[in-house]
Order: sequence, then structure tokens, then C-alpha cells
Amino acid sequence: MTHGNAPNPPRSTLVVTAHAGDFVWRAGGAIALAAARGEKVTIACLTYGERGESAKAWRAGKSLEEIKGIRRAEAEAAAAALGAEVVFFDAGDYPLTVTPELTDRLVGVYRAAQPDVVLTHPLDDPYNGDHPAAARMALDARVLAQAIGYPAEGEIIGAPPVFFFEPHQPEMCGFKPQVLLDISEVWETKRKAMECLAAQQHLWDYYTDLAVRRGVQLKRNAGPNLGLAHKTMAEAYMRPYPQVTGELA
Amino acid sequence: MTHGNAPNPPRSTLVVTAHAGDFVWRAGGAIALAAARGEKVTIACLTYGERGESAKAWRAGKSLEEIKGIRRAEAEAAAAALGAEVVFFDAGDYPLTVTPELTDRLVGVYRAAQPDVVLTHPLDDPYNGDHPAAARMALDARVLAQAIGYPAEGEIIGAPPVFFFEPHQPEMCGFKPQVLLDISEVWETKRKAMECLAAQQHLWDYYTDLAVRRGVQLKRNAGPNLGLAHKTMAEAYMRPYPQVTGELA
Amino acid sequence: MTHGNAPNPPRSTLVVTAHAGDFVWRAGGAIALAAARGEKVTIACLTYGERGESAKAWRAGKSLEEIKGIRRAEAEAAAAALGAEVVFFDAGDYPLTVTPELTDRLVGVYRAAQPDVVLTHPLDDPYNGDHPAAARMALDARVLAQAIGYPAEGEIIGAPPVFFFEPHQPEMCGFKPQVLLDISEVWETKRKAMECLAAQQHLWDYYTDLAVRRGVQLKRNAGPNLGLAHKTMAEAYMRPYPQVTGELA
Amino acid sequence: MTHGNAPNPPRSTLVVTAHAGDFVWRAGGAIALAAARGEKVTIACLTYGERGESAKAWRAGKSLEEIKGIRRAEAEAAAAALGAEVVFFDAGDYPLTVTPELTDRLVGVYRAAQPDVVLTHPLDDPYNGDHPAAARMALDARVLAQAIGYPAEGEIIGAPPVFFFEPHQPEMCGFKPQVLLDISEVWETKRKAMECLAAQQHLWDYYTDLAVRRGVQLKRNAGPNLGLAHKTMAEAYMRPYPQVTGELA
Amino acid sequence: MTHGNAPNPPRSTLVVTAHAGDFVWRAGGAIALAAARGEKVTIACLTYGERGESAKAWRAGKSLEEIKGIRRAEAEAAAAALGAEVVFFDAGDYPLTVTPELTDRLVGVYRAAQPDVVLTHPLDDPYNGDHPAAARMALDARVLAQAIGYPAEGEIIGAPPVFFFEPHQPEMCGFKPQVLLDISEVWETKRKAMECLAAQQHLWDYYTDLAVRRGVQLKRNAGPNLGLAHKTMAEAYMRPYPQVTGELA
Amino acid sequence: MTHGNAPNPPRSTLVVTAHAGDFVWRAGGAIALAAARGEKVTIACLTYGERGESAKAWRAGKSLEEIKGIRRAEAEAAAAALGAEVVFFDAGDYPLTVTPELTDRLVGVYRAAQPDVVLTHPLDDPYNGDHPAAARMALDARVLAQAIGYPAEGEIIGAPPVFFFEPHQPEMCGFKPQVLLDISEVWETKRKAMECLAAQQHLWDYYTDLAVRRGVQLKRNAGPNLGLAHKTMAEAYMRPYPQVTGELA
Repeated sequence: MTHGNAPNPPRSTLVVTAHAGDFVWRAGGAIALAAARGEKVTIACLTYGERGESAKAWRAGKSLEEIKGIRRAEAEAAAAALGAEVVFFDAGDYPLTVTPELTDRLVGVYRAAQPDVVLTHPLDDPYNGDHPAAARMALDARVLAQAIGYPAEGEIIGAPPVFFFEPHQPEMCGFKPQVLLDISEVWETKRKAMECLAAQQHLWDYYTDLAVRRGVQLKRNAGPNLGLAHKTMAEAYMRPYPQVTGELA
Repeated sequence: MTHGNAPNPPRSTLVVTAHAGDFVWRAGGAIALAAARGEKVTIACLTYGERGESAKAWRAGKSLEEIKGIRRAEAEAAAAALGAEVVFFDAGDYPLTVTPELTDRLVGVYRAAQPDVVLTHPLDDPYNGDHPAAARMALDARVLAQAIGYPAEGEIIGAPPVFFFEPHQPEMCGFKPQVLLDISEVWETKRKAMECLAAQQHLWDYYTDLAVRRGVQLKRNAGPNLGLAHKTMAEAYMRPYPQVTGELA
Repeated sequence: MTHGNAPNPPRSTLVVTAHAGDFVWRAGGAIALAAARGEKVTIACLTYGERGESAKAWRAGKSLEEIKGIRRAEAEAAAAALGAEVVFFDAGDYPLTVTPELTDRLVGVYRAAQPDVVLTHPLDDPYNGDHPAAARMALDARVLAQAIGYPAEGEIIGAPPVFFFEPHQPEMCGFKPQVLLDISEVWETKRKAMECLAAQQHLWDYYTDLAVRRGVQLKRNAGPNLGLAHKTMAEAYMRPYPQVTGELA
Repeated sequence: MTHGNAPNPPRSTLVVTAHAGDFVWRAGGAIALAAARGEKVTIACLTYGERGESAKAWRAGKSLEEIKGIRRAEAEAAAAALGAEVVFFDAGDYPLTVTPELTDRLVGVYRAAQPDVVLTHPLDDPYNGDHPAAARMALDARVLAQAIGYPAEGEIIGAPPVFFFEPHQPEMCGFKPQVLLDISEVWETKRKAMECLAAQQHLWDYYTDLAVRRGVQLKRNAGPNLGLAHKTMAEAYMRPYPQVTGELA
Repeated sequence: MTHGNAPNPPRSTLVVTAHAGDFVWRAGGAIALAAARGEKVTIACLTYGERGESAKAWRAGKSLEEIKGIRRAEAEAAAAALGAEVVFFDAGDYPLTVTPELTDRLVGVYRAAQPDVVLTHPLDDPYNGDHPAAARMALDARVLAQAIGYPAEGEIIGAPPVFFFEPHQPEMCGFKPQVLLDISEVWETKRKAMECLAAQQHLWDYYTDLAVRRGVQLKRNAGPNLGLAHKTMAEAYMRPYPQVTGELA
Repeated sequence: MTHGNAPNPPRSTLVVTAHAGDFVWRAGGAIALAAARGEKVTIACLTYGERGESAKAWRAGKSLEEIKGIRRAEAEAAAAALGAEVVFFDAGDYPLTVTPELTDRLVGVYRAAQPDVVLTHPLDDPYNGDHPAAARMALDARVLAQAIGYPAEGEIIGAPPVFFFEPHQPEMCGFKPQVLLDISEVWETKRKAMECLAAQQHLWDYYTDLAVRRGVQLKRNAGPNLGLAHKTMAEAYMRPYPQVTGELA
């Protein structure tokens, strides 16, 4: 929203994710950009990804609680690097199940955070059912938090725009980039946050390559005349709701 | 595009339409907003709509040339009211046919206008084949105009974002609003431009109602906290290419 | 169905909706037409819309029970105006949750009503999850009610055609009109029923305008030769199942 | 259209097909039903299918003209059996190409036939490009024939509903039945018309089986209570435009 | 998968179905082919179809337990005829509900069976909600069974390809054949298995005709030069995940 | 096709592309694999990409004929490296236009090559209209070449499977990988062929990265147990027609 918003509190971004590492790989750039502008970023992390995304730790014989602890510590370090705060729900992964109770807890987070922007997973992912479950609850809670009749603490919220971040296998999830976000200026920050996730070192280069590729795509869509840096880094997003604007650009 | 573009010439908008009245009903607000910001707006009007959209004149016994003249005069008046310039191609409507020659003429217009933004029809319309034909050529010419190897006058262009404006029967044309443009501040201008199209007086209220409806939708998507005027007027658009941005909002 | 159906009992229409007002805004014309033909119309209203669609009452400091009472009274008045009967489930809205128990209660309503036609919400609505929940249960219960093995009171039903009525933001819900119903002759009745919903006065004109617009679309799809009244009013519907007919028309 | 149409001339159906046999296999039942009701049916047959659908004759060493003659005679016999009239365009098949000239000739047929109903191929067929070409021209010509400004003989037409008949491989052509037409009462007539197409005897049983299958589907969608004959025969259709009606059924 | 797989244990196929008869009508050919190659086939049959697919038995006054017994015996006979083993879950049909407990039981079956191939229903079926419920759990359990962190007996599994078999009304379920399987050599076996399902004799010919039709389609997609038997019988499948191969063919 | 095909002539692959470099970047692995198996590969290259994909040469002041010559030489070297033969149509790019004459020339190539497999572009590409034009003609010509009645030299062909190779911006072209081809064993050959295209050196690494990424995806879809090499390289394809097979795998 580029017009008419109240000036006083800093803008607030809410990120709802299924597992501890998701916000880093997929939205670390957007988070770092917002933080760099002095805005507040809250990450609602529904599970630690302790069962579905910690194969190496299980193979090393760690216990469930040890694994949760490792994942939590890594996620907290990464969030700190990006300039954001994480709230852990510890709802249990693989499977993460949609429930009214969990949705209700999310409503509370919405009312507390009063987000101007919401980031979450897309609604389809044939490789990991936890992601759509988190997205489903993120969208439902956003609507409930808008209703004065819904019995939860705090003020009702507006209708913040929602952005779906890019899943690991975009073509299989119906993910078509609708927004390409230039994250060049915070790239080093995102890279540092990724390096906090020691257990998944093989993904550091994977997501670096993705940022390069989305950067190339950004330049291709912006045209040759744009004067962008040679190495533009970018993240891709979808919008489930229409953009509201005062200018076509 | 909100970052890194050259400052000097005023921004330029190119509107490619099939018939003489299209730009008024469907994009008059966007045109007036751009003109109000001091930008340049060029309308490439491929036909006068002399056969397909002038039933009243035919019934009144006008000749083909008379009808073309009436439509041209009305469109020029409306464009002037909005602050834009019209280029008439007189390519013949009903049917407007996609040809390499017409596409090539459009390439010339692109290179001359050097648009920062392009507006045109969506690619599907089961009620009027001229609209998709115009859109097809608008998109093809945009790509050709980018190529240094394409033999046409003028400098190559960048990759300006494209916006499809709303067709008369949106649900039947696969039109799902992706951008809601607040046109409240230029609403009176758009209304005046519509009133230049005397032959289609029944559409004045139709498109006024549509602007109210899209305004309601804009407010619903922006949330109750926004402080928007009670009577927000809006136009809806789609994006065939990803938005390039430096901030999610 | 236009051929071969038994003549004796009057035709029966079942309307399954999420909230107390839905049947008026979206299907009031179809209901009034059926009632005007002497048919029976039963409305299964799953919630009062007490939390999600009663913002004004909450702001006025009403209690939950007061709000339910107001909504119930309004809905009963509107149903009476249309000539239909309402059954309230009081299942709790925002969120309305799909459960086997609620579906089972709906099976009972199907077997009691023996509907020839079923009306409900479409299956997608990104602005209100209660609507798809109601539709999901309406469709599931219809299938269960057909099975002789399903343990519920009453006779099994046939396979009545289903119509999805138009949601508030059709383009965002994948709603493409497949049936345009001429409601001109009962328009005054629908307007009166809308006026029973005092708390939502701003919607009276909104849905009047929609009926005009769908009427224009009906005339456009029927052609200029049709001899329809100048001010045709209409409602739009989708069919999830194929139409069964003895004549293409 | 079930309401308000002028009573005087018999209803008129226009069938636009790519090849000589198409109207028999795919719409023979609808044609026979209309004829049985005393209505007029005109078949615009754009080609004889001389190259693409006459493999047996080519293998037998027939010449192009001989093959055209055979196909024409067969199609005329089949049309007579159904009670319809065929107009041959002899536009050349494999490929049938969309041209303004051919579309213009079709406009003339529309204005002469003044159809109340139009039947044609669906717009996608990855196995035979002639079918979409015929459909494209059928739809374009229908829109042009409505315009008073289009320079062709005859009166302008209304906006007759269009039905796409079922292609040979429906799932590969995006064909989803939206209308199931009960053709039981004219089944023997359709079978006789099919038997006029001696060169394609293997299709007689294929399309008999299809009619049985669509009949089973019709009964399943109509419900067990319907009292339909044991052996209901049916044809499936799609609607590209909304149905206009006075009653939901 | 055609390359690099371990040679030792025989290949294993897992079929997950909602009701007792589903595996016969829809995948009997694939099962018989696998068994004929000496492979192991396990059928996880979630319900007996006692309520939703046993109308004749209910009309004959059988009790619930009697009907389950009949269905079970028929399914066991059919499985034996095909060369497969059935595991009955007795989860209750009409409705079959997605639950974490049932999904967990399926994980156990996956880990025990270690399937190289998985067959199940497609994810949409507007005529029978039990089918999508079974498919949903089949897909979820497959992902969970891959995770070393998921607490279930047995070894984790690989990522076996999944095939959706053809539903009863394919066009209404979004079913587009992506794989046509030649079952000619085991056709007699499939027919014998179908004849074990005495209560549904009317489907024997229905699915015989379908096999002929899919065989015709197979030949059409394979081309005239292929030298296939005159009466090729086939089954159709969809792939929700990409095929992995060492050769395009 | 894995069953029943005649053994004698080596298998033949036909690749139809718009521009000189397309076959290298997008299908070089499949071509090299086929050649390595001793099969014949024919590349129908419709244009040299002289206008749309040779920006660097135009900037360097080369003439049209010089550019064509450079592109031709590069493509011939790359084809030789892969083990394939190129046929140049020199049809003119930017825009490449669909014409009956060009389609007819392609029919001749089909009949001469008698392909067992066909590779071409997907049918949508909003960034380059030449690609869909080439694909359209590739598909049309394949159907025409099957018809004994089509007047062209040579024997009619069968119905070879078609594979769409991956476009440069897959998500924007509706490209969803349906087949992942393991090209690890010919990777060095593909890299050498890419290095023949000196003018587009920046793409060497881009397509190397893509092959790594598709290789990761292949392994993820094949499961952890597969024993694939650490660095699997892959290409992605779509199938517009169903796969015909004798075994689900």
C-alpha cells in the first residue's frame, strides 16, 4: 500500500512458516530489507521441523528434544542475523495438522503484530503437506483477526497484503512469480543468516544460485535500460489478493 | 518500477486499443492519473470501431466514412480531456486481423514512445475478437521493439510492465483483478472524458458504477483501517509479467 | 430436469448457506421465483453470521446472544417475504468448521426436503472460509443422502442439480456465470426481502446494481431480438454437475 | 432460450463442422431431435475431409475428386436421414486454415439461417487442427453476423446459444460435459445416419457405445428416481456462453 | 524407474483404494501385469464400500456385517485371481474421513511394503468424496514414510512414482490420461477378477468397453505402424510427479 | 514406446526449433544420449535467430548476412559435437510467422526422417513468440505427415511421442516438468556443444546450473535409495500426448 497509511508506528511484517528454516531460505531477503528500513518483523514458526527436515540429526542418533533444541537455536541465530523476532509454536511437524486451536493462536499473533504485510507458503506443495497446512492457517487467521466479533485479545487488524514465498520446487507447486523483489543490497545479510543453518550446508549454494537466477529474471523483466547492478539478487513472490496502488508501475 | 530508472524525460505510457472508445471506459483513470503527474500518454487506436461498435449510427443511416469521422472526433475529444494523444491506425474493425504489417507499425510506435508502462486488452474475449487481436499485436510488438536486430526506426526499448485493463464482461474473459488502481482524484476527469462519447450514453453510468464497485473492492482489500475516502473510485488491471520492486507492499 | 419427473408433490428447493443473510443477497430471486410457482423452498442456514458478519452490532456493544437473535429475526422476516422456510443450525461461524456431525445433520435435511434443486455457495472464497465450508458439507451431504446404506431417517434422494450462487467478489472466487436467471418478475419481492436486513442497508443498492448488471449480461447473451423488458434483473449461477435436458436451448 | 422468443418461423439450428462426417457422429442426435420437432437444421460443412479422414479411399487408389464425391454423397444421405440440409464449402482440409474470406462466407450463412442454436467443435483438439479452425470461424462469424455495420447480405442475428459437441478424445481436448442431451427417442434415426457413412463402419459401434455411456452418465446425474428408460442414449455438450433461463432446473 | 535400482527383492506395488471393488475395475490390469512379472502387489483397502457401493445388498435387507462379509469375500477372490494380497482397514465408508490415525496406519503399510510403484485414486471426484480422501491419505503417508524422523516401524522408503487410476467419470474429475498401459496380455485375468464381484455384474461390460476404448486410444497415440494386436486393451493413468527416465520414448 | 516396434532401422529423433542455439541449451542432453545409442538425430532449425538472439553481433556492427553465417557455423559445430545433423530453413525470425508453406516443408522433413521421437518448444512463451510459432508448426506438420491423403513426398509416419523441452523462463510459460531425463553420462558432450556457441558465453554456466538443479530434482523424485551418482545432471520435458507403455514405472 503506497498511500494513506498512518505514519506513527513502524511498519510491521508477519511471516508464518511451517518449519524452523523456511523463513531463511525463502524470505530472508524480504525480512532483511524490512529490518534494514527500521521495520518490525515477527516470524511465527509453527514447528521446528524436527521430524521432516532433520534427517541428518536423526541419522546421528539425536533425540527428539535434542533435535528441537538444535533447530531452535539455529533459527534464533538466523532471525537475529536478519533483524527479526521468532515465535515458536512447537505444534509438531510431519504432519502439521490444521486445527481450530492452532488457528486461534495465530489470530492472537496477528492482533499483537498488527502486520502491514504477511508472508507465508503457497497453498500447494505435493512434496510437503506441512507447508500448505501452515499457509491455510495463516490465511484463515488473517480473516478471523479482522472480525470484531472474533473473541481474541487485541485490536482487530486491517487487510494486509499477503505474499507467498517461493517453494523448493516451484513448478510442481503452481508457483508463478508475480513479484520479483530486488534483494541485492541485503544479500550479504541473507547469506549470513543461511550460514546459521549449519545442518543444511548443501542448501547455502542452492539458494544463492536461486537468488542469482531470480535476479537475472528481474533484469529481463525490467529491460536492458535499467542500469541495475551486474549481479542483481532477487526473491520471487505470488499475491493471492489484488495489489492496491495509486500508480501503475 | 520504483528504483533505478533514468530521471530525465517524463515517464511515458502507451495504450494499445482496438476501438475508438476503449481507452476511455477501461483505462481513463490510469491515463488521467499519468497525465496529472505530468507524464506523456500515447494511445494507439487500431480502428475506429466503425462496424462493430457503432450500431446506433448505422441504424441512423450514416455512411462508413461519416461514422469513422464521428468516432474519431469523439475519441480525440476524450483523449484531450484526459490529457493524452491518440494515434489512429484505421486498420478496419470487425474483424481486426493480426498481421505482420500492423504489428510492424506498432513497433514503430513503441520505439517512438519509449514507454515506461503499457496498457492493453486482455488476451481472451469471447464476445469481441478484435480485443484479443489488438492485445496480441501489442505484446508481440513490445518484444520486437526490444531487439536491436529488428529493422525499425528509433532506439530499442526496455521491458516496460504491461497491464491488461478490464473487459466489459470480466468473468467471461478470465479477468481476475490483480491490481486495483485508486482513481478517486481524477474521477471527474474520467467522467468528463466518458461524456465526450455521446453515442454511448448508456455506458456512462455503467462505468461509473463499475468504478464504485472496484473502489469498494479496493477498500476491502486495503482493510478498514486505511482512512480512504468514503467514495473511492477504482479501475482493475491484470499483469501478464511479474512486478519488479524493491519493497513488498 | 425437463422430462419424465413425477408430477405429484410440489417441486422442492433446498438452499444451504453459511450465514443468515446469504440466501437473500445471492439467491433471493431464485427463491422467490420458485415460491411464486407454488414450490417449496427450505433454507438450511448453518450459522447466524454472528461473529463474522455483524460488525455493526458488535461495535454497538451487543452481546453474542443478542446478535444471534437479531440476525435470526431478520432472516426469518426475509424468508417469509420470499415465501421460504428457514432451518437454523446454529453451528457457530468464523470459523464454520466442516465436521461429520454437521454433515450428518444436513443429510437429514436432504432426506426430509427431497429437493429437486439445490443452491449453495461456490467452493472457493479467499475472503470468507465459512462459505466454502458450507458448500463442502452441502455437496457431501447430498451424495450421502443418495445412499440407501447411509444410516439416516427418511427416504434416499435422487441426484438433484446443484447451482452455486454468486459470491461477493466473483472474480476472486473463480466464479464464471454459467446460468443467468431472469428474476425481473419477482424483483420487487427480492428487494423487500433485502430490506428486512436492516443492519446491512449499504448492501441493498449494491445487490440492486448487481441484478441490473447481470440483467444487462443476460440480454447481451440472449441477443437484441429477444424482446426482453428494458430493465431486466438477473442472478448468476454456476453448475458443478452437467445439465440434463431433452432439448438444446 | 425458453422465454419471450417470437413465435412465428420454426426454430433454426446451425451446425458448423470441419469435415463431412463430423455432424453425424457428434451431433446426430441433437439434429434429429430438432428435425423431429419440426425445426430447420442447416449444416455448414467446411470440407469433405478428403485428405485427413479418408485413408481407406486413398489406399484404394481413388483420386482426390472421387474421394470428395464419395464423401459428399455419404454426408448428403446422412443429413437426409436426420432431416437436415447440408451446405458444402469445399474449403480444403488438412489443413483447414482460418481466413477472413471463409469467415465472411460463414457470416452469410448465419444471416440466412437466423439460427436459434449453434453447434460446433470445441476450440482445442491436439489430434486434428481442422476442428479448432472450424470452431474459431464459427464463433467469429457469429459475432460478426450480429453487427449491423458488418457488410453482408441479410438481417443481423441475435445471440444464439452455442454448444460444443464432443470430440473423439474428449479428455485430451479439455472437454468436460456440461449438458447431457437425452437422444433416446431418435436413437434409431442417428444409427441409420451413421450407417450412411459406409467407409467408416468401425465407428458405428464406437459411437453407439459412447451414446450408451453418456446415457448412463445422464441417469447418474439425474438420480435413481427419475424413471428413465433402461437404455437411455445421450450426447454430451459444452456451453462457451452462459445459459439464459427463467427457471433453475 | 528404469535405471540403477537394486536387483534383489522382487519389485513391489502398493495400491491404496477407498472401497473393496475399486482395485479391480480401475487397476486390475496393472496389478495382473505386475503379478505376471513375478512382482509383489499389496492392496490397502480402506473400507469395504459397505454403505456407499452396496445398494443392492441393502435393498435385499442384508445387515451391515453381512454386507461387509460379502464385499470382503468378493475382494479377496478378485485379488487372488489377480495375484495380489489385500489388507483391509475397515475404516468405515460414506464418508471415509481423513484422520491422522488412518494416515499413520498407512505409513506402516508403506514401510512394510517398500513399494517401487504406488497406485491410488485421483484427488478430485465430485461424485464420491471417499475417493479423494483415500488418495489424500495415500499421498500424505508416502511422504511421511520417507522421513527417518517419523516414528513408525520399519525402514524408510524411497520416492516411488505414483499413478492415479481412472475414476468412473473421468471428465468430471479432471482426469486426463497421461499414461496408457497395454494390458492385452492379462485381459482375461482382469475379466475373471471382475467376475468375482457378483453384485456389480452390470459393471463387467462397462469396464470391458472402457478397456477397448483406452486400447483404441493407445493405438491412436502409438501410430498406425506399430503392429499392435487388433484388440488392444488398455488402462489409463495420471502421474502427479515427474517421470524419471534415462531415455525419451 | 517400449514394446512391439520394428527392430531394423536405427531409431530416429526429430528436433524442431525456432533459432540456431535452442537445441543446444534445451535438448543437448537428449540429443547426445540418442546419438550415443547409435540413433539418428535430425534438427529442423527454422531460423538462425539472426534478429532476436544476436544482440551482441548487431552491436558490433555486423550485417544481417554475416550474423546468419556466424550463427549457422556455431550451430553446425554444436550439432556435430552432439552427433546430430541440422537442416536450416532460414525462415526469418522476430517474428517467425506460422504459414502453410513452412508447415508443408516441415511435413517433408517428417516423412524423410520418420521420427520415433519429436522434440520441440512448448506452446506458450510470453517472452518470445517465435518459440510457440515453431512448436505450433511442429505439431501441425506431425499430424499432416500421418495422413496418406496429404500430398507430400515419402511414406506417412506413425504417431511419435512429442516432448516439449524447457523454456528459458519455465514458470512464465506454463512449463511443469513431467519427465526428468538423466543426462549425466553425456554431460561433458553437452557442455562442449554449448561452448561452440561463443557469442552466448554467459549462458554456459546458466544451463550448467540448470542441469544440476534438474538433477537434484530427479534424485528427489527418485528417492534416497536409488544409488544415483552424487552429481546427477538432468533435463526436463513435458508430454502433450499420453505415454504409451507396457509397464508402470
